[in-house]
Amino acid sequence: MVVEIVSVGTELLMGQIVNTDAAYLARRLPEAGATLYHQVTVGDNPERLKEALLTALSRSDVVITSGGLGPTKDDLTKDAAADALGLPMELNPEAERRLRGYFETRHRPMAPNNLRQAFFARGAVLFPNPNGTAPGCVIERDGKAVIHLPGPPREFVPMVESSVLPYLAARLGGVIRSRYLRMFGIGESDAETLLSDLMDAPNPTLAPYCSLGEVQFRLSARARTVDEAESLLNPLEEAVRARAGEFIYARTDIPDDTMARIAARRLIKSGKTIALAESLTGGLLAASLVAQSGVSSVLEEAVVSYANSSKMRRLGVSGESLRKYGAVSEQVAREMAEGIRGTAGVDIGISTTGIAGPDGATPVKPVGLVYAALSAAGHTEVKRLELKGHRDDIRQLACLHATKLLLNELGGSYGG
Amino acid sequence: MVVEIVSVGTELLMGQIVNTDAAYLARRLPEAGATLYHQVTVGDNPERLKEALLTALSRSDVVITSGGLGPTKDDLTKDAAADALGLPMELNPEAERRLRGYFETRHRPMAPNNLRQAFFARGAVLFPNPNGTAPGCVIERDGKAVIHLPGPPREFVPMVESSVLPYLAARLGGVIRSRYLRMFGIGESDAETLLSDLMDAPNPTLAPYCSLGEVQFRLSARARTVDEAESLLNPLEEAVRARAGEFIYARTDIPDDTMARIAARRLIKSGKTIALAESLTGGLLAASLVAQSGVSSVLEEAVVSYANSSKMRRLGVSGESLRKYGAVSEQVAREMAEGIRGTAGVDIGISTTGIAGPDGATPVKPVGLVYAALSAAGHTEVKRLELKGHRDDIRQLACLHATKLLLNELGGSYGG
Repeated sequence: MVVEIVSVGTELLMGQIVNTDAAYLARRLPEAGATLYHQVTVGDNPERLKEALLTALSRSDVVITSGGLGPTKDDLTKDAAADALGLPMELNPEAERRLRGYFETRHRPMAPNNLRQAFFARGAVLFPNPNGTAPGCVIERDGKAVIHLPGPPREFVPMVESSVLPYLAARLGGVIRSRYLRMFGIGESDAETLLSDLMDAPNPTLAPYCSLGEVQFRLSARARTVDEAESLLNPLEEAVRARAGEFIYARTDIPDDTMARIAARRLIKSGKTIALAESLTGGLLAASLVAQSGVSSVLEEAVVSYANSSKMRRLGVSGESLRKYGAVSEQVAREMAEGIRGTAGVDIGISTTGIAGPDGATPVKPVGLVYAALSAAGHTEVKRLELKGHRDDIRQLACLHATKLLLNELGGSYGG
Repeated sequence: MVVEIVSVGTELLMGQIVNTDAAYLARRLPEAGATLYHQVTVGDNPERLKEALLTALSRSDVVITSGGLGPTKDDLTKDAAADALGLPMELNPEAERRLRGYFETRHRPMAPNNLRQAFFARGAVLFPNPNGTAPGCVIERDGKAVIHLPGPPREFVPMVESSVLPYLAARLGGVIRSRYLRMFGIGESDAETLLSDLMDAPNPTLAPYCSLGEVQFRLSARARTVDEAESLLNPLEEAVRARAGEFIYARTDIPDDTMARIAARRLIKSGKTIALAESLTGGLLAASLVAQSGVSSVLEEAVVSYANSSKMRRLGVSGESLRKYGAVSEQVAREMAEGIRGTAGVDIGISTTGIAGPDGATPVKPVGLVYAALSAAGHTEVKRLELKGHRDDIRQLACLHATKLLLNELGGSYGG
């Protein structure tokens, strides 16, 4: 099943918006058994849009568009596709009803042009949009299918999950189930080498996705029933764990989860309180945990102690340690973690200190030298790291290592 | 001059990488007088790549590729283009010399397959790559041009600036000059309405680019000389300032600068010291300032005081104010800003407190209610904000408002 993505919109074409929709969809498509050869982007121009759709239909089984479903005269995607497919546009009563309901529940008047959003090519089957006014749809014709999705990622992504992937899997006669194993401490190519033969199988599939410092492996199975799919996934997960278990820190059902959010959720569940002493990471560690709603119940505070005076005054780091070992040292990292834990009165204290560059390096303390420490009842652990990359990369990697210390401390479950 | 962007790479096609290159280039092209109708993405497949290049050449004057210039067998872009153009591949002595020099200065041996990076279609004119091993190039043939650029953004973006835009401008016989006016406190559509007639002119051009809470206007002129271009830009800038001057907080020569980096640079220049007390923003404000290298000389510390106990202990906020007005109140924002300024012993203290949602709202304190405060010698200013959007948006907007308070305090120059 060959699928093509046609992204529509002058703002996309002109680079006013980065096309995260297409990247997201492209990463999810293989789960549904789809193969992708082309992505194209065109502006809000009916001729070029129709031409792009005809080209896509000539070389693909399913064409998925994003964008151009709104109420304005620039929103032309549905009309252009109906034109390309030779179908008339019709008012869809179900879509009209939902649209009027959307405005009613929000006590807002509906402008007449909004009704455009209830017109679809004849025979279109609607995809509900709980996050906006424009439903998606699929139109089948001569064995091919055109799928329309709204452009805003907060509408697009949920519709891919709830409607598009199930539709594509059903087209091949079945359901899909996916789970994700997240790894830390192993590089992309090492992980792929370790698991390469498992990645060759057509079903269930194993596919990596790398972000800075982390590798996520997606395990997907297609089968006739959910139970069958799960029973395909279980031995695959076992095989991955047998080879790379030491690097796996979480298994989740959510694609593209983050280590910080996973750690924050486990922390909330544990009921333990935490406080942070950040030097090098400059607030990033706090910000990454705070992204998880509910963390305020366990995160007491963070002190971004950039200056030595702040490390002494706020955290009780000794002036002698700073003079003798320097701010970037195992000793100071330890005193920062213990200091924030003690002064904040929490269960766990975490600290970072290091040299992000480009300035600040010395012959014995190169750019990328980082210490991360965790202090809890009865013990303090300090990790010495030599990180590579640009300034921002070093900070992000330091956050991951500090968060990994937290995950180790919380221990136990592999759940997300 | 019609330009088409062909992005090459299986990782791009499969969504492993989001295509920021294409968005960046697309936004810069109009400055060089180029019109863009199509962006396409294909994988590392020679047939589909050649077909995409032939299609692009059939409907465009200039085809710009990104990616596939590396040393591996998957890097096929130059070969596919030479094939499409009917040109032989040749070892370019200049490229070979630079390549060997690159490895020598880094004291690394050069693997034989690296020499692939010195092969180009006959007649290719090289674009130097100071940030990597793969030079770019332009190949002219029958009045059309193919431009190859490396994929990594840290190599791609500088080459667009230093080689591609000047080449395209020269193709139309001239030079281009751009400057950027950054606005805050006005929405995209209001700004466009205010300046719409100025945005219609073909040269100099005025074009908006919006990010959350901010609008950047790019002023670009094409002319025979730099002086002529600048003298086209001056009256346009004057006209924009006459209408929207109150919203302009900076003029820069860098596209996509950020308010935080601009504020950090002005702060460093001022020599004033600063400390932050963040509740709602949870470390984001510190992290945004720290992104600017050199800020450690003026940023003493930040306290992310999530818990009330932290606000009292670290910042000296009074328990009575917390009880009487609540943590999200003008009074507490004021005490936080004054408290961090006093306890850190700095010139300027800034604070944020508010409700990001989805939880924590009350009938009188809705989600989005935010206070930002700045305390300096002799005065404290508190701003009450009602921000709209999702949790992350509210945090980001709160950071911008707090940073704007800092810019106001630093005053003076419009420079970036």
